[in-house]
Amino acid sequence: MTSITKYPPISTWNKLLQRPTKSVEAIESVVDVVFAAVKSEGDMAISRYTKQFDKVYLEQFLVSNKEVDTAISFVSEELKQAIKQAKSNIETFHTAQKTNKVDVETQLGVRCWQEKRPIESVGLYIPGGTAPLFSTVLMLGVPATLAGCKEIILCTPPNSEGTIANEILYTAALCGIKTIIKVGGIQAIAGLTFGTKQIPKVSKIFGPGNQYVTVAKQLATKFGVAIDMPAGPSELLVMADATANPAFIASDLLSQAEHGIDSQVILVSTNERTLIETAKQLSIQTQLLDRQSIIEKALENKKLILVNSDQVAVDLINYYGPEHYILCTKNNAFFVDKVINAGSVFIGPYTPESAGDYASGTNHTLPTNGYAKAYSGVGLDSFLKNITFQEITKEGLITIGNTIELMAEAEGLMAHKNSVTIRLKSIDDES
Amino acid sequence: MTSITKYPPISTWNKLLQRPTKSVEAIESVVDVVFAAVKSEGDMAISRYTKQFDKVYLEQFLVSNKEVDTAISFVSEELKQAIKQAKSNIETFHTAQKTNKVDVETQLGVRCWQEKRPIESVGLYIPGGTAPLFSTVLMLGVPATLAGCKEIILCTPPNSEGTIANEILYTAALCGIKTIIKVGGIQAIAGLTFGTKQIPKVSKIFGPGNQYVTVAKQLATKFGVAIDMPAGPSELLVMADATANPAFIASDLLSQAEHGIDSQVILVSTNERTLIETAKQLSIQTQLLDRQSIIEKALENKKLILVNSDQVAVDLINYYGPEHYILCTKNNAFFVDKVINAGSVFIGPYTPESAGDYASGTNHTLPTNGYAKAYSGVGLDSFLKNITFQEITKEGLITIGNTIELMAEAEGLMAHKNSVTIRLKSIDDES
Repeated sequence: MTSITKYPPISTWNKLLQRPTKSVEAIESVVDVVFAAVKSEGDMAISRYTKQFDKVYLEQFLVSNKEVDTAISFVSEELKQAIKQAKSNIETFHTAQKTNKVDVETQLGVRCWQEKRPIESVGLYIPGGTAPLFSTVLMLGVPATLAGCKEIILCTPPNSEGTIANEILYTAALCGIKTIIKVGGIQAIAGLTFGTKQIPKVSKIFGPGNQYVTVAKQLATKFGVAIDMPAGPSELLVMADATANPAFIASDLLSQAEHGIDSQVILVSTNERTLIETAKQLSIQTQLLDRQSIIEKALENKKLILVNSDQVAVDLINYYGPEHYILCTKNNAFFVDKVINAGSVFIGPYTPESAGDYASGTNHTLPTNGYAKAYSGVGLDSFLKNITFQEITKEGLITIGNTIELMAEAEGLMAHKNSVTIRLKSIDDES
Repeated sequence: MTSITKYPPISTWNKLLQRPTKSVEAIESVVDVVFAAVKSEGDMAISRYTKQFDKVYLEQFLVSNKEVDTAISFVSEELKQAIKQAKSNIETFHTAQKTNKVDVETQLGVRCWQEKRPIESVGLYIPGGTAPLFSTVLMLGVPATLAGCKEIILCTPPNSEGTIANEILYTAALCGIKTIIKVGGIQAIAGLTFGTKQIPKVSKIFGPGNQYVTVAKQLATKFGVAIDMPAGPSELLVMADATANPAFIASDLLSQAEHGIDSQVILVSTNERTLIETAKQLSIQTQLLDRQSIIEKALENKKLILVNSDQVAVDLINYYGPEHYILCTKNNAFFVDKVINAGSVFIGPYTPESAGDYASGTNHTLPTNGYAKAYSGVGLDSFLKNITFQEITKEGLITIGNTIELMAEAEGLMAHKNSVTIRLKSIDDES
């Protein structure tokens, strides 16, 4: 059953584009309990919750060099080469994001500049679950290393044998990450927030995760730890006109749908036939895939939206602010120019989303859930911070001093004023 | 009574440099109540809380053009010139922060780039209280305008006559801000978070405030709104050696102390005499200032710390991560080179903190409370976000396709793999 929403008026966009939301209140109380336990008991609480959630009791969480070496020997040469090629592209794009120092004299004798410094200690969270998401190790490990972060702590849940997937250990080693900790879930985020004997406290936590991890990261911010961004279910919006290939589009929508039953897929088109043909392709291709039940469930929430012009499409897409945004039109330049809210944009028939998920060079840690309206995806800057500097000469202070005195006085801050007056007087006394 | 901490061992730094913290739990429940009321009742709740907290009942919150015009006529020409000079310097420095598009071919046929776009709607919060903090209007309004934010909403609490300080209205008008809303405190943050008939919903909220505003901003993030950074009491650390002028240093420490009784001032030196002389100057200068009781209370928590080398000083300062950091040594270049954690750095004898607070060009919205370890101060980038783009040619996909397929398969994501396979097959069929 293909249901196409035709020419929806603006007044209906809010409802039409609503994301699947879930109540997190039940989760919040669990997260509070785990945080309190880790804060007061440290590693003992970590062991206990690892036993409870991951079904394995561990006293030592640090992955040994021997474990890493063994893991490396089990990864096929073919996959190693693939991971290295992806890493090289990610390095190239993130290295290009380095910026020069900003340095100006705002007026004679008043020099202001800005320099970036690495965040010294960062935590990278890599989810566990059915598949080893080693691509996320690249997406976080490469920019963390390029930025020069001194302490890079990778946390990932162990399986019930107490081990980590070979691919994750191989990729972490390839990125030069030395501290790999077999702890996942809420207890990992709590450990990185408070620090324990075995888990170092960090200044910023990165990485995706399930709802528990998401709520835990939000709670971490209350204890002074920064996070990359709030998370939500992954989503893809495709804008396609009559020139697009429905089989290609369907393959992209399906790659999004296989992430989970709450994944959201949206197809916007100025051409009804494209919507109909893509819907047919969705049915055909789903039959050929694994994870069919997840895909079918996710597709229940898909939206096929017919609009009457490129401009309406642009407005609707910016209103939604998709995490992933594929463009397959004869007019891609128009859409690129007009995009305001999106995480990452994939242009043309030979740019599937999976290229950016793995290997083109862009980062796959992106703002979902409409956060693209205010947040950037992860990039080199996510691991750096700006410090401003200023140096004023005697002459500079003579020029700017009275302005500062007047403004400080008008704000009723006389000690602020005095810090200028006392210096101007001293300059005056000298001469 | 001057108490100098001499050569503190590293093991004592944590306790020595502890910031004054307060429990916010009592505040949290008030904030929750106001948010719930504004969410369900909108402007009616806004009016009610304005009456309760600001002692004035208003039904219309928007400042009229007439009010702005009247305010402008009441600001002295001298102060207007000062504000204009400060604005010009802030514009110069923030304009210099514009960056070029990052654009690279990571490998043949795989082009990745990054472009910045303005956050469309932003809320600027300007605190009320005893003094009109119009300088913060410049610090937020100038970069918001330069970034190209379309909707800039300024919220600030009315006084008990229902009006706003002339200087705030003048400065807002000078920055081109058209929407000025007479609502402050928790209810302003709630209004900007949910949107009401009179207060537009925004994507990101900026600006300082008291503890209620701070907790409200934190809560706003739970509802999908971004914030500039978490806040805390303001702080200043001065590093001075034997070459520094104790009277100058004392004037800076006092300008910090006058902000509030929880302001933190720290002086680090390699020279005991500098610490003793500065302490004497603090006593002398305090007598000449207003706000003496606030200053004396804040100074009770001051730290005068003697260290035995520049390197130890650097380590201790980076451990603390000061919001404001003044350098008065013969070796300033060494300290600039080694700084990792700080908000803004003021270098040399003629660069008081108040220069950056008002007029040099740097931003005064800075990470306090140790947040400098992970956060930047507000700058042009705070009002922008990065979007990544990628475009792959047929040849590019042929080169990179197998890497994507291998990685997707190893992660168990077969639909991801298929989105490449289907395209490679189509290219193959063509030839």
